[in-house]
Amino acid sequence: MSKLPNVTTSIFTIMSKMAVEYNAINLSQGFPNFPVDERLTDIVSRLAKENVHQYTPMAGYPPLMNKIAKLTQDSYNRIINPDTELLVTAGATQGIFTTILALVKENDEVIILDPSYDSYESPVLLCKAKPVRVALNDDYTPNWERIEKACSAKTRMMIINNPHNPTGKILTENDFIQLKNLLEKYPDIIILSDEVYEYITFEEKHISAHTKSFLLDRCVTVSSFGKSFHITGWKIGYTIAPEYLMKEIKKVHQFLVFSVNSISQFAISEYLDVVNVNLLGKFYQEKRDYFQKLLQNSRFELKPCEGTYFQVASYAAISDEDDVTFCKNLIINHGVAAIPISTFYSDHKDQKLIRFCFAKDDFTLESAAKKICQI
Amino acid sequence: MSKLPNVTTSIFTIMSKMAVEYNAINLSQGFPNFPVDERLTDIVSRLAKENVHQYTPMAGYPPLMNKIAKLTQDSYNRIINPDTELLVTAGATQGIFTTILALVKENDEVIILDPSYDSYESPVLLCKAKPVRVALNDDYTPNWERIEKACSAKTRMMIINNPHNPTGKILTENDFIQLKNLLEKYPDIIILSDEVYEYITFEEKHISAHTKSFLLDRCVTVSSFGKSFHITGWKIGYTIAPEYLMKEIKKVHQFLVFSVNSISQFAISEYLDVVNVNLLGKFYQEKRDYFQKLLQNSRFELKPCEGTYFQVASYAAISDEDDVTFCKNLIINHGVAAIPISTFYSDHKDQKLIRFCFAKDDFTLESAAKKICQI
Ligand SMILES: CSCCC(=O)C(=O)O
Ligand SMILES: CSCCC(=O)C(=O)O
Repeated sequence: MSKLPNVTTSIFTIMSKMAVEYNAINLSQGFPNFPVDERLTDIVSRLAKENVHQYTPMAGYPPLMNKIAKLTQDSYNRIINPDTELLVTAGATQGIFTTILALVKENDEVIILDPSYDSYESPVLLCKAKPVRVALNDDYTPNWERIEKACSAKTRMMIINNPHNPTGKILTENDFIQLKNLLEKYPDIIILSDEVYEYITFEEKHISAHTKSFLLDRCVTVSSFGKSFHITGWKIGYTIAPEYLMKEIKKVHQFLVFSVNSISQFAISEYLDVVNVNLLGKFYQEKRDYFQKLLQNSRFELKPCEGTYFQVASYAAISDEDDVTFCKNLIINHGVAAIPISTFYSDHKDQKLIRFCFAKDDFTLESAAKKICQI
Repeated sequence: MSKLPNVTTSIFTIMSKMAVEYNAINLSQGFPNFPVDERLTDIVSRLAKENVHQYTPMAGYPPLMNKIAKLTQDSYNRIINPDTELLVTAGATQGIFTTILALVKENDEVIILDPSYDSYESPVLLCKAKPVRVALNDDYTPNWERIEKACSAKTRMMIINNPHNPTGKILTENDFIQLKNLLEKYPDIIILSDEVYEYITFEEKHISAHTKSFLLDRCVTVSSFGKSFHITGWKIGYTIAPEYLMKEIKKVHQFLVFSVNSISQFAISEYLDVVNVNLLGKFYQEKRDYFQKLLQNSRFELKPCEGTYFQVASYAAISDEDDVTFCKNLIINHGVAAIPISTFYSDHKDQKLIRFCFAKDDFTLESAAKKICQI
């Protein structure tokens, strides 16, 4: 008997594979298709010939850890101690998995919002704990009343994702006030905040969980250089947590991977000296605006997008098909790959919604839009 | 309460850190200190400028997977299906952790030999299963009688490590016959075979578990390019398993890391076209022989070493200190770092034995030997 009986091939794998098979434009799985910053690839080319090929220390390459601490201070005026509060991970996914495995115990409950990115539930199940799904409001804001109703003495963790994949929603100051009120009643709940799109926000500024003083001693934040530096394949992320939690996270990390790809860590460490992450929001805002403009005469209805590089769109005016079928036919008949939003719901509820990734060069966005507008 | 209450800082971290602090020659943690093959670093330098920076597929970069299948066929005449029986992992450690998490359930028992590399027990404990330690014979060969006595209907897995870290012992044809006899009585036991040093054997040839027909449908083999290509920092390994087990392993892998560092996978894939892994045994055999010769007038007694890049040595004639204390003083007073063998025993039994890593250039081995011979 499987320990994860309900896990099947990930929708990202299915759609990316079908996109290749049918030679479709791939706006499904979230990854950029434009070249990586030459300054970064130059660093890699040079470093390859240097002494960067052996184990880095377990928690990360120390100069990189210092730079991450500096980045966190520059971005949020939040001071972290890299020795005790920071861990470099093999992508944010490993940070999330390791945190859950380290902190969640049998019969604990973990609040997961609905819809959600697909990688939160399985690690909870592997801990023999119980995922408790709480539906977001129709506009994808958290419903704090429902969340509070779902909390109990058994609740160990609540997972938030800010900016939110797939809906692009970001949490507001008011959300954090509500969260504060809630946590005052439940002193044992820890927040796991997945902030991999932290630098990809538009009109509103992102609020990082670990900048809130009421969360300092009870939140774990996960981030990813894959998203911030257009290098999703590198699988380098990091996790920030207060020392007493980080201690437990490191214990699992030590046996889960021990350490993380060395040359990538050396390269990112150098790159952090020259890159300006604050340009990223504007860069993707322009892409969002351009993509939305290109689709303005299509029959899709576009939802608001406050952050991430994903655009949710309704095809209710076009077809009655369920969203998985619609996405498959979109590839086969129209040469464009997207992700069905039902995948992100625990009950796979079809709402005639799909997700496009707009982290693509203009030519790709234009070619895709031309096809989409013909539907 | 910690889920891993007994885990403390790894001895490899402690000793490598002390080595740096005291400017000692580091023969502790296992990693080479000589340059990586220029052909490989040239590949990385060139690839950095190419389109190699986004997610590879979940189970690995397909061309690399085909090359691993070819390597396995060339080395062992064993044909594997890369689509269904192979997974590329973030180092062998991740392969081991993922396999255990996927296949071991609460209350299962897992046989772990004693002494053993330190990363087998924690994942078993995280599954709420029970590690059952079975002592090797005094010459570090498996004691098949004791192993059989330790087996029961509860036994789900037995972990073997061949060649064996820290003792350098390799399994013989006779060992596999004994294993076959044992497994006939226990049809539910799966073998997890850690073979990261598979290409580092000397007088005797390594026998890979997945070449034995009685193991084909019940063994998971873990290997590592870190050891074979002198790139321990890259953290790229692979796992071979029959399809019904690999399915479960992939389910966990998908949420544990999703995929593995892309540029490293592209580079190893190309390198496998030009490198000859069969030269590795001879390369390290010369290092072993040279290191043993350099120490021949020391007061350490050297144990036999059939594989790996580790040399076990007794200091019984030199000191009464326990091995941890001896190793610390070795760094502080004599400028050489080693690993105490007690770390590999479940009861931390002191036997006046320490482990030297000889994966070092000749100058380093000579400098270390000079210091060691003065003790
Ligand atoms: C790890 S594959 C999924 C990539 C991603 O974050 C997304 O497309 O939502
Ligand atoms: C992952 S650090 C330990 C390296 C190693 O394999 C050893 O020294 O035994």
